[in-house]
Amino acid sequence: MISIRDFSREELEYIFDVADEMESIYRSGTDVLRGKILASLFFEPSTRTRLSFETAMIKLGGGVVGFAEPDISSVKKGENLADTVRVVESYADVIVLRHPLEGAARLAAEYVNIPVINAGSGAEEHPTQALLDIYTIRRELGRVDSLNIGILGDLRYGRTVHSLCIGLTNYDVKLFLISPELLRLRREFLEEVKKKVEVVETDRLERVIDKLDVLYVTRIQKERFADLAEYEKVRGAYRVDLDILQRAKESLIVMHPLPRVEEIDPEVDYTPHARYFDQVRYGVLVRMSLLKLILSG
Amino acid sequence: MISIRDFSREELEYIFDVADEMESIYRSGTDVLRGKILASLFFEPSTRTRLSFETAMIKLGGGVVGFAEPDISSVKKGENLADTVRVVESYADVIVLRHPLEGAARLAAEYVNIPVINAGSGAEEHPTQALLDIYTIRRELGRVDSLNIGILGDLRYGRTVHSLCIGLTNYDVKLFLISPELLRLRREFLEEVKKKVEVVETDRLERVIDKLDVLYVTRIQKERFADLAEYEKVRGAYRVDLDILQRAKESLIVMHPLPRVEEIDPEVDYTPHARYFDQVRYGVLVRMSLLKLILSG
Amino acid sequence: MISIRDFSREELEYIFDVADEMESIYRSGTDVLRGKILASLFFEPSTRTRLSFETAMIKLGGGVVGFAEPDISSVKKGENLADTVRVVESYADVIVLRHPLEGAARLAAEYVNIPVINAGSGAEEHPTQALLDIYTIRRELGRVDSLNIGILGDLRYGRTVHSLCIGLTNYDVKLFLISPELLRLRREFLEEVKKKVEVVETDRLERVIDKLDVLYVTRIQKERFADLAEYEKVRGAYRVDLDILQRAKESLIVMHPLPRVEEIDPEVDYTPHARYFDQVRYGVLVRMSLLKLILSG
Repeated sequence: MISIRDFSREELEYIFDVADEMESIYRSGTDVLRGKILASLFFEPSTRTRLSFETAMIKLGGGVVGFAEPDISSVKKGENLADTVRVVESYADVIVLRHPLEGAARLAAEYVNIPVINAGSGAEEHPTQALLDIYTIRRELGRVDSLNIGILGDLRYGRTVHSLCIGLTNYDVKLFLISPELLRLRREFLEEVKKKVEVVETDRLERVIDKLDVLYVTRIQKERFADLAEYEKVRGAYRVDLDILQRAKESLIVMHPLPRVEEIDPEVDYTPHARYFDQVRYGVLVRMSLLKLILSG
Repeated sequence: MISIRDFSREELEYIFDVADEMESIYRSGTDVLRGKILASLFFEPSTRTRLSFETAMIKLGGGVVGFAEPDISSVKKGENLADTVRVVESYADVIVLRHPLEGAARLAAEYVNIPVINAGSGAEEHPTQALLDIYTIRRELGRVDSLNIGILGDLRYGRTVHSLCIGLTNYDVKLFLISPELLRLRREFLEEVKKKVEVVETDRLERVIDKLDVLYVTRIQKERFADLAEYEKVRGAYRVDLDILQRAKESLIVMHPLPRVEEIDPEVDYTPHARYFDQVRYGVLVRMSLLKLILSG
Repeated sequence: MISIRDFSREELEYIFDVADEMESIYRSGTDVLRGKILASLFFEPSTRTRLSFETAMIKLGGGVVGFAEPDISSVKKGENLADTVRVVESYADVIVLRHPLEGAARLAAEYVNIPVINAGSGAEEHPTQALLDIYTIRRELGRVDSLNIGILGDLRYGRTVHSLCIGLTNYDVKLFLISPELLRLRREFLEEVKKKVEVVETDRLERVIDKLDVLYVTRIQKERFADLAEYEKVRGAYRVDLDILQRAKESLIVMHPLPRVEEIDPEVDYTPHARYFDQVRYGVLVRMSLLKLILSG
């Protein structure tokens, strides 16, 4: 479970079907994974992803060990990742790994005989986020095919964006990529996506807002701009508020991987468009589905 | 479960009755809360309170997720508290929150549909500490009414003191407030307490020690004094040792919210007066009682 | 469970027999320790040891509370160790303590009425590491008696080395102590070991490699050398690689307490000599054995 590229449409749909079944276990718990242990290895901080996996494991009756930041691990003593995961292999039945380096999860998986779930590595991949994003669309709109899906913000560096784009190429969707020039999807990646689905690029949300069924918002980080004046110029144009939503379809759903800073106005929370907190709950269901499929055979 | 003010005497007594029943579960465990999850969100470090809640939850058969300090959470990325708790709402059945800001727990509770237990916020409130303090008195002395209760130390800034005073106003007690002038209870707060119970203020423990049934000790922090010489002058006068206890009733119990630094002499640990470590155990029982009442309907 | 010195040979063998029985529980879990809680108090970081104990406890059905580094505990507020463990006594059925100070575990054990397991204190003792080391030898070679056991690296400061030497004095072994002059075992400690078992000291691995049944490798820390040139001179001589292993017995097993940095070449991992990752798994079995013996009567 390293890359969203490892999944066919059929596999995605199967994971989502099992996620649907997790709804009742989510409420009452089960002990189907009693005696199983998930190792939660976070070499970068991430409350949401870590707690989501841990919750999913506990709801299924399993246990959790791990660390939430690298300083408190023996990494401090200079141990390399290959050794760390080979040690942890003796403790756990599945490893959930978050790491700042590209390819860390794949490397880890090569060294151990237990499943490794990539919980974000480098800028490219965050596959379980993509799974829960697509599952959210399926749950909230009843289907993924034939939808107009806008992705807004930092398309160049955001790892959730990359995994989501690849995941969506399994469906018959139209993608609207909305970002400042500087933060557009990289060319070669864009070409790959374009081979599978129709893509429209724009630097103005207002030009496409009325066409969208889904608006997926991500943060634009100040640090990406060499020139701060440049940043100040664009930031307002990528903020979602009641104003811009007046031009949207009534059924538009607004999503966000969270945490948000100011790219979605808090007023939006109280509109029927907001789905970012539901997304969090769906994330637990999807991760329960994955853990159940991986660990209970 | 935000403020000790939310509880009537009847509610306190009911929580205490259930806490009594928790004694046997404390020893052997149960699975009444199987499948339930407590989110332990500590934006300030606190070993005791955090471990006490986590122990209570585990003894009842539930699971725990969370973080022990804000740096390792997505707070680092600038997420606000309202968003954090709305995310965590998808992971947990109850939130235990410790936060440096006044009103944080109440704000959190307004944003989510699951119970929020205030585990300390700002300087004013630490309601479960007050519950366990009063429960300790009830357990150790058989009643709370008609006792003379001394509270010693930093009455101005200590959050346990404020919650304890309010909690005790539900009973027919006489309060002896013992502190240096600089650290007296704030006037308006004192007036509120005085409306309900009799209060004696003094800056000398030796003047009242012989009257007390309970002596509740808190730390005096050096940092509170602009003039360090001033601190050096008072520190000895607020230290509880064998000497001063010779003038106390034989049945006096000495309590402390812990951690202590030097305000109780270690020799006192071996006297029959010492109850501060029993207090810790009663804290688990009270928190088990709360969690059971909140979560198992 | 403070020092390896507390164990007779019969007790060691009994722990190992129970560890053998833990193999199937390790795979499927049990709930024999349901309702029991292990407090994992790590005043120094240690991923492996902490996760190993937590895994052992969870596999047996128990729960875990604790902290992974001192900053997030009330130690920050100046609480002393005696108070900390007396508080934790109310939360847990057993304490696992790692502490930078010599004698910390013994001090802790004097203050509480629950078992304390020393998970490393100061430079002298790491008894459960010694248990798992000896258990690894027994499992992998079928016996401990009459073996030639080499211990390589920092024999002066390494705590695992001290506990291992003492543990091995319960058996009829021949010890080969291999280290640079500067890092030899301290004289008085050496004399103690020599009273029980035959000892050969050398500063050259190649002189004894062909005689060994077990080669136990530990790290040599740069910081131990006042003169860095001195360090550069010796480091190569204490590195285990395919070259030196060509002169070893076919049945030689290479062990390491981990984490390693560069003292074992990664190529060695793929030889049949390598046992350091198996050691980790045996560590869980030994700790399960200990916890079961201590907690389930």
